[in-house]
Amino acid sequence: MAAEIVNPRSDSSTGNEGTDEPFDPAFALHRGGKMAVQATVPIRDKDDLSLAYTPGVAKVCSAIAEDPELVHDYTWKSSVVAVVTDGTAVLGLGDIGPEASLPVMEGKAILFKQFGGVDAVPIALATTDVDEIVDTVVRLAPSFGGVNLEDISAPRCFEIERRLQERLDIPVFHDDQHGTAVVTLAALKNAVRLSGRTLGELRAVISGAGAAGVAIAKFLLEAGLGDVAVTDRKGIVSRDREDLTAVKRELAEITNKAGLSGSLEDALAGADVYIGVSGGTVPEPAVASMAPGSFVFAMANPNPEVHPDVAHKYAAVVATGRSDFPNQINNVLAFPGIFAGALQVRASRITETMKIAAAEALAAVVGDDLSAEYVIPSPFDERVAPAVTAAVAAAARAEGVARR
Amino acid sequence: MAAEIVNPRSDSSTGNEGTDEPFDPAFALHRGGKMAVQATVPIRDKDDLSLAYTPGVAKVCSAIAEDPELVHDYTWKSSVVAVVTDGTAVLGLGDIGPEASLPVMEGKAILFKQFGGVDAVPIALATTDVDEIVDTVVRLAPSFGGVNLEDISAPRCFEIERRLQERLDIPVFHDDQHGTAVVTLAALKNAVRLSGRTLGELRAVISGAGAAGVAIAKFLLEAGLGDVAVTDRKGIVSRDREDLTAVKRELAEITNKAGLSGSLEDALAGADVYIGVSGGTVPEPAVASMAPGSFVFAMANPNPEVHPDVAHKYAAVVATGRSDFPNQINNVLAFPGIFAGALQVRASRITETMKIAAAEALAAVVGDDLSAEYVIPSPFDERVAPAVTAAVAAAARAEGVARR
Repeated sequence: MAAEIVNPRSDSSTGNEGTDEPFDPAFALHRGGKMAVQATVPIRDKDDLSLAYTPGVAKVCSAIAEDPELVHDYTWKSSVVAVVTDGTAVLGLGDIGPEASLPVMEGKAILFKQFGGVDAVPIALATTDVDEIVDTVVRLAPSFGGVNLEDISAPRCFEIERRLQERLDIPVFHDDQHGTAVVTLAALKNAVRLSGRTLGELRAVISGAGAAGVAIAKFLLEAGLGDVAVTDRKGIVSRDREDLTAVKRELAEITNKAGLSGSLEDALAGADVYIGVSGGTVPEPAVASMAPGSFVFAMANPNPEVHPDVAHKYAAVVATGRSDFPNQINNVLAFPGIFAGALQVRASRITETMKIAAAEALAAVVGDDLSAEYVIPSPFDERVAPAVTAAVAAAARAEGVARR
Repeated sequence: MAAEIVNPRSDSSTGNEGTDEPFDPAFALHRGGKMAVQATVPIRDKDDLSLAYTPGVAKVCSAIAEDPELVHDYTWKSSVVAVVTDGTAVLGLGDIGPEASLPVMEGKAILFKQFGGVDAVPIALATTDVDEIVDTVVRLAPSFGGVNLEDISAPRCFEIERRLQERLDIPVFHDDQHGTAVVTLAALKNAVRLSGRTLGELRAVISGAGAAGVAIAKFLLEAGLGDVAVTDRKGIVSRDREDLTAVKRELAEITNKAGLSGSLEDALAGADVYIGVSGGTVPEPAVASMAPGSFVFAMANPNPEVHPDVAHKYAAVVATGRSDFPNQINNVLAFPGIFAGALQVRASRITETMKIAAAEALAAVVGDDLSAEYVIPSPFDERVAPAVTAAVAAAARAEGVARR
C-alpha cells in the first residue's frame, strides 16, 4: 500500500540539481519531507463542514469538557504519539541540534505508522535543558496519547524519562533504551532456546554504558540473566571505581556479580554473551577468549564491533544491527507494537512486564523455524507488530495500568 | 477525493451506543478523531528502510547540520503548521481546557489540509500562563514552518502573538484576529464596490472588543476605512473612559475619530457599517437608525446579532457567519491560502501587506458576479485558496520577508 503513496511535494528531479551535493538517492527521497497529514472524514460540502467543524464540533467539545476521558474516544489523541528529541544524540552523529535531527524523527514517525498503525508527530525541541524539556513535554501532553523520546543524550535521557512518566498519565518511552533492550532480549531468548541453556546460567558483557547499554543491562537482569558486566571507555563498571556518574554507580550495584575489574577484554574472557552498543571494536583474540558456544550481538551501525565473519569463527549465534546480515537487532521490531498495544488499552505507562511480554511475543514469532541464522524475525515480517501489540495490551490489562 | 477517505479507526456504529449521549451524527463522525499521519515515501523493503531511515538518513541530517536552511528542503517543516491553543476561548464555549478544545483544533487542521494543502498538527497546551505558552511554542518551533494560534482568550492572545513573532523567524498568526479581519475586509471591499462608494467615506461600528473586534478595527483602518467605533459591554471604547485595558486604551487612540460616547445604539445612529463579533443582540430600532444603504455584517454564531431578515429591511448588504444565509464570513476563506502562500516562499512573518493582498485576492474572486447576495465567495469555491496563496506569496516577496 505504501508503494502507492507518492509525495505530492516531490518533483521528478533527483533532488539535488543546482546544489553542491553529490547525487544521492537519500536526498531525492527526502525532498519535501517524508510525511503528511490527512483528513479521515470527508469535507465535501457545508453539511460536512458543519459536522466536522462549527457548529457540530461544539457538542463534542462540551462532552469532553464534562468528561475528559472522552478525549480518547472523539479525537486522535489515542492514536497519536509525539516523537520528541532535543537533537543531542542523533544516530552516530551526536549533538547536531533539533533541525538536523528532524529527518530521523520523521523517519521514526513513518515507521510508527507503517509498522504499528500509530500516528506520530516529530517534535524537535530548541532546548537541551532537562527542566525545560520536561516542562515543555508536560504542556504538550494533552494532545498526545504517548511520548516516544528519541536520540537524547545520556545521562540526561534517564532523568527526563523518569520525571516525565511521574508527571504524565500517558506512556513515556525512550526507545533508544527500551526498544533496544526488548529486541535484544527477544534475540537472546531464542539463542538460549536454540542452545538448550537458560538465561540464568549466562554471564554477559555489554560494551557501552549509554542509554542502550544501561537499559539492556537492567532489562536482561530483570528477565533472569545470570550476570552482566557493562564497560565504558575506562573499562568495567564496578563498585571500586571512583569516577562513576550516578547512573553508573547504580549500575555497579546491580551488575558485575562476578566482581570483575579491568578492560572489556578482561570481561570477555570466559563470558557467554557479548552485546555491543558502543561503536568501538573488539579484537579477535578477545572474541576467541569467550566461553564455547557464545552469543555475539555486535549492534553498532554501520560498523559492528565485531565483524560477523570474525564472530562466526567462535560464536554459536551472531547478530548485528545491519540489514545485510542475518539476525538484525532492529528497534522497529518493538516500538510500533509496544505503542500500538499501550494505546489500544489506554495504558498509563509502559511497565517492565509489558516490555517482557513484548520480547516474548517477538521471540515467539520465530517459532519452529529457529536456527542460528534466525533468532529474530525480519522487520518486514507482518506477524510481528500484531503479536507484540496483543501481548503488550494483554500485559497492561493484567497489570492494571490499562484504562479499558 | 476526501470523500474516499475512511477513518480506519471508526467502526460502523453511530458512535454512541452504550453511552448516555443522545444520538448525534457529530459524535459518530468524531469517533477516533478526524485526522491521521501518512508516509509520503514507500517503506516496502530493507532498501527503502535504509534510505528513509538509517543509514541513509544520516547524510541528510549531516547536510542540515552544516546548512540549517536545508531543513526546509528535506523535511516536512516547510509544509506543516502547529495549531496552538490553550483552550481558554473555544468557540462560544469559553475556557473549556486543552483536551476539550482538541476537536476544534483537529477540525482546523483538516481545513488547513483540505483547503490549502497545508499539513497541520493540533497542539493543545496544558498551561494558560503567557510566559509558559510563549516559551513552549518557541521550543517547538524547529519542527514547524508556521504557528497558527487559535481560541486563546483576549487580551492574552495579543501579547502571546507579539512575543512569539518577535522571537521566531516563522509566521505566527492568530486566526481569530487576522483571519476574521481579512475576510471581513474582503466582504466590505465588495460591498463598497457594489454601492459605488469608497472605504474612506464610511463610518463603521464594531460590537465586541475581543480578539476579532480589535483586529478588525485596526485592519480596516489600515485598509483605509474612514472611521470606526468599537463597543464592549460598557459601551463605546473612547478616550474618556477610565476602565480600559491597555489594549482598549490603544484602540481608543486610533478609533472613534467622531468622538462618540455612550452605548452601541448611540454609535449605530447614522453609521454606515455594522460589524458584529460580540454574540450579543442589536435591537431593530438601532439597525433602523443607521445611514441609508448600510452594510450589516452580523457574524456571531450560531445566532447573528441581527437576524438577516431584520437586517434586510434596512441594509443594502447583509452578511453573517452562517452557512445557511448568503455572504458567509468564514475564516476558512483566508487562513489556508495565507499560510500556503507564506510557506511557499518561506516568509518569516505574515505582514499587514500580505493580509491586505489576501483580502483583495479573496474579494476579486467574486468578480463580475458581484451582487448584494454575493459579496464574498463560498468556502467551497475552488478558486479561493489558489488566489489567496498566490497573492500572499507575491506580497511577501515584494515586501522582502520571503526567503525564496
